[in-house]
Amino acid sequence: MAAKRTSEKETAESMGRRQREISISEFFLKNRHLLGFDNPRKAVMTAVKEAVDNSLDACEEARILPEIAVELVQTAPDRWRVSVRDNGPGIVRAQIPKVFAKLLYGSKFHRLRMSRGQQGIGISAAGMYGQLTTGSATRILSRTTAASARRVEVQIDTRSNKPAVLADAESDWRPEFPAATEGAEAATYPHGTEVSIEMTGQVVRGRLSVEEYLKQCAIANPHLRLHYRAVPLPKPGLPEPPAEPAWTTYERATGELPPPVEAIQPHPHGVELGVLMQMLKDSTSRTLKGALQEDFSRVSPRVAEEICARANLDPKTSPARVAQREAETLYQAIQDTKLMRPPTDCLAPIGEEQILAGLRKEVPADFYTAVSRPPSVYRGNPFLVEAGLAYAKPGDNPDLAADDTVRVMRFANRVPLLYMSGACAMTEAMESVNWKSYGLPHPKGALPVGPAVFFLHIASVWVPFTSESKEAIAHYPEILREMTFALQEIGRRLGVYLSRRQRQAEADRKRSYITKYIPHLALGLQEILGLDAAGKTDLETRLVRMLERAKDG
Amino acid sequence: MAAKRTSEKETAESMGRRQREISISEFFLKNRHLLGFDNPRKAVMTAVKEAVDNSLDACEEARILPEIAVELVQTAPDRWRVSVRDNGPGIVRAQIPKVFAKLLYGSKFHRLRMSRGQQGIGISAAGMYGQLTTGSATRILSRTTAASARRVEVQIDTRSNKPAVLADAESDWRPEFPAATEGAEAATYPHGTEVSIEMTGQVVRGRLSVEEYLKQCAIANPHLRLHYRAVPLPKPGLPEPPAEPAWTTYERATGELPPPVEAIQPHPHGVELGVLMQMLKDSTSRTLKGALQEDFSRVSPRVAEEICARANLDPKTSPARVAQREAETLYQAIQDTKLMRPPTDCLAPIGEEQILAGLRKEVPADFYTAVSRPPSVYRGNPFLVEAGLAYAKPGDNPDLAADDTVRVMRFANRVPLLYMSGACAMTEAMESVNWKSYGLPHPKGALPVGPAVFFLHIASVWVPFTSESKEAIAHYPEILREMTFALQEIGRRLGVYLSRRQRQAEADRKRSYITKYIPHLALGLQEILGLDAAGKTDLETRLVRMLERAKDG
Repeated sequence: MAAKRTSEKETAESMGRRQREISISEFFLKNRHLLGFDNPRKAVMTAVKEAVDNSLDACEEARILPEIAVELVQTAPDRWRVSVRDNGPGIVRAQIPKVFAKLLYGSKFHRLRMSRGQQGIGISAAGMYGQLTTGSATRILSRTTAASARRVEVQIDTRSNKPAVLADAESDWRPEFPAATEGAEAATYPHGTEVSIEMTGQVVRGRLSVEEYLKQCAIANPHLRLHYRAVPLPKPGLPEPPAEPAWTTYERATGELPPPVEAIQPHPHGVELGVLMQMLKDSTSRTLKGALQEDFSRVSPRVAEEICARANLDPKTSPARVAQREAETLYQAIQDTKLMRPPTDCLAPIGEEQILAGLRKEVPADFYTAVSRPPSVYRGNPFLVEAGLAYAKPGDNPDLAADDTVRVMRFANRVPLLYMSGACAMTEAMESVNWKSYGLPHPKGALPVGPAVFFLHIASVWVPFTSESKEAIAHYPEILREMTFALQEIGRRLGVYLSRRQRQAEADRKRSYITKYIPHLALGLQEILGLDAAGKTDLETRLVRMLERAKDG
Repeated sequence: MAAKRTSEKETAESMGRRQREISISEFFLKNRHLLGFDNPRKAVMTAVKEAVDNSLDACEEARILPEIAVELVQTAPDRWRVSVRDNGPGIVRAQIPKVFAKLLYGSKFHRLRMSRGQQGIGISAAGMYGQLTTGSATRILSRTTAASARRVEVQIDTRSNKPAVLADAESDWRPEFPAATEGAEAATYPHGTEVSIEMTGQVVRGRLSVEEYLKQCAIANPHLRLHYRAVPLPKPGLPEPPAEPAWTTYERATGELPPPVEAIQPHPHGVELGVLMQMLKDSTSRTLKGALQEDFSRVSPRVAEEICARANLDPKTSPARVAQREAETLYQAIQDTKLMRPPTDCLAPIGEEQILAGLRKEVPADFYTAVSRPPSVYRGNPFLVEAGLAYAKPGDNPDLAADDTVRVMRFANRVPLLYMSGACAMTEAMESVNWKSYGLPHPKGALPVGPAVFFLHIASVWVPFTSESKEAIAHYPEILREMTFALQEIGRRLGVYLSRRQRQAEADRKRSYITKYIPHLALGLQEILGLDAAGKTDLETRLVRMLERAKDG
């Protein structure tokens, strides 16, 4: 009943006394919808996504061919335990608490490098949501060497955004994975990580399900072997399900890891004045010229000198001593200097071949094609776009109705994006292409119609998402243009296929017509010409051949 | 040229060494589109909005009738200095650096109270954007007593999210405001705050302009006197503009402040398990019963005992010593206990009268109406919805075309929301009402059509925004329902007006018909009956009267 009165007349002093720091954990706890934890279905999906992203990033950095198992176990009518296990390098003991129970902590934010994780929020936010809804802790198993493994349980102290360690012990855990095919042995690895979080949640089927996410994950990561199962509670009144539901396994389409990617320095044309000033202050170089060369990409000694001359600054001056006014001149000089575009070897495309392999593996269809665009640049950040298409013969694939709008699978740095398609640049690009000219029905302001799945992928050292939950790509014109180019190329190829198929269909119709009437014709001619049976058969064969030649010509 | 190689094969150790904390400032600097600083136009608007929100909150808490001046001065082709001055209580010196140069710092996050600010991010983010794009500092003038004022300049150290003070001195500043009407004296106050931020920006006109924001602000805050001017640089080649462009002033519609609002304790049914556990841990009460009574709203001693009994816990136990398993039982017991709904005296509606006054002042129209709904609850948070309408006769108001969709002004805790209307629950509510039944054309899945402005306001102790930039309301069913009810009531009243207007129009048509033919009829009758001129006039008058009676009947 205690509604504390704070509504008396305030003064500057009384208001000042109430000012307080807000921890980032408190902030995201109250605003957890910003991170994708706004409803029980989405929460489970988001937790799986964050854990799988981390596993894949770690495996690739350690150059390990990834094998991952995702297990969802129902513990109460509205509760599930989400567990994700990998064969990655493991996590050293000292880092475990912060990695899993501190928001804004990670290795990927401060470098420009293509990776799935960016912010250092995801997995800790999943743990925080579990803690909020069930009071439980995040359980981690980590094995970095053959010698031993560690079992740790952590929670976030949301007041301080610091981890609290609830358990910490040696363990004999070995990452073990189900056998891929019957009769095969299960795989065991000398290193890996497993994370388990219990949370209020729901596991559903359909377009926004964990299953769909994993399926798309397998398509965009053909080097991944992935196992999945959900273990629901027995339903009251129904017979008990088998004690151990079977695992679904997505096999690898390739045994090769994506090529290793480089971290790059920022490109001078993508750096804003305030960031430039901060970088000069932080530089380890002794001279301005050295700072320009070493802290940025595409600045050769000659170019560094050119910039200094244009800004009327001594190349030997200490970068930390450049004043604000001078920094403004320097900033302008950089804008006025012609520079090479950023390096693009920092991007690892999936590649046309692998996109095709992924689509063939998971989407039964008749026509497949894929396009990998050359790298381009937005706001100083290199990026590239890839597109793919699986087109089924109408009626062939029950998942793809000919009179529905096409499905679009969206990916960013190989991570499937399931939610918020309406707010995504990829959807805008899909709608902006004139699909009618390639033979697909296309209602205005909507997706085209047809029995097809489109695949769209953006790879970048910094993917511009519209929100922290990383579900949609921002509408940069450079990005939209590249997507449109990729889709138009896909469109042209589809157009060729569709018109060939149409010609084929007409030919088939003609052929069936011929097949139907030639026997009658031959019978007539037999009478007229007085042929015997052998003569009639011979005539019939030659007629068929002749008409088929005429049709092909 | 130095693209540093980090792509060698990594180990758990080498990856661990790269893990780092990310400051919240760095995070939002890189993701500043999340805060509304994604383009130069929106940046100026957002900065004005954050500063005005703070001024209004401070004035109301100190029970001062607010007077605010907003001045935009162009300093370079792509740069503006945004200054906002108020007659509020001022800010004590010790708090100035943190209030203006530290993200996640404030007095409003940790309490449940209706206010414009919530997060403790806005004004510091505006300063950070200014610093990023121009390298300049946020300048603050603050006068808390008649004795003296303080001039402070701050920047954010984004690495640590801590303020750096660049200047700090006594000042003789007195908050001064332009004269409201010609000949009147300018107002000077013994206290107030002024903040100035220089930033890369653009000042535009139209639906997403500072002007539009301020106009709507004046409508939703009829107790506010507001001055505005923009001072652009002279255009090359054009004659110099007058040295001092005039101020636009929005006068008060009322001299009364909104009623003071209470901060409330959270309602038990809106608290999740993890938060419950944290609250028990933090409680200053010695017993569980005391903690339930004091830290929550609507828990009487009797109800507290009922909850304890249901959870099988001793009411005298120390709240800090409730274990996780016990907390779960307690949580369930709370859910199972019937409680009064949260108190709603913590909400200050604008009120039907003030909404009407605001609309009449700024939107010329023919028909006005307003509805203030009783308070309701979502997720344990009290909220209420208000709606208003200004409907112009077609052609009367050049801003309101009869064949355009209606305009919707959206407000949250008296703050206008200009962006992201497509993602807002208010837009969904507007589209879901069957406007056709009230006489407005209404294309499916769109806003209705007509020369009208709708006003929608949500007041709550915690407004559920869809993003940090606070531009759209989340789609809670309880909120949508209240909005729909308010709009349906508006619709019924509009329907009555429209059908009365239609009857009126028909009557007018009939009357003009009568007026046209009666003289002819009288002339004919004069001949037939052989009347003199006076007799004819008398007959004509009586005919008009008779026919009008017939029409009205």
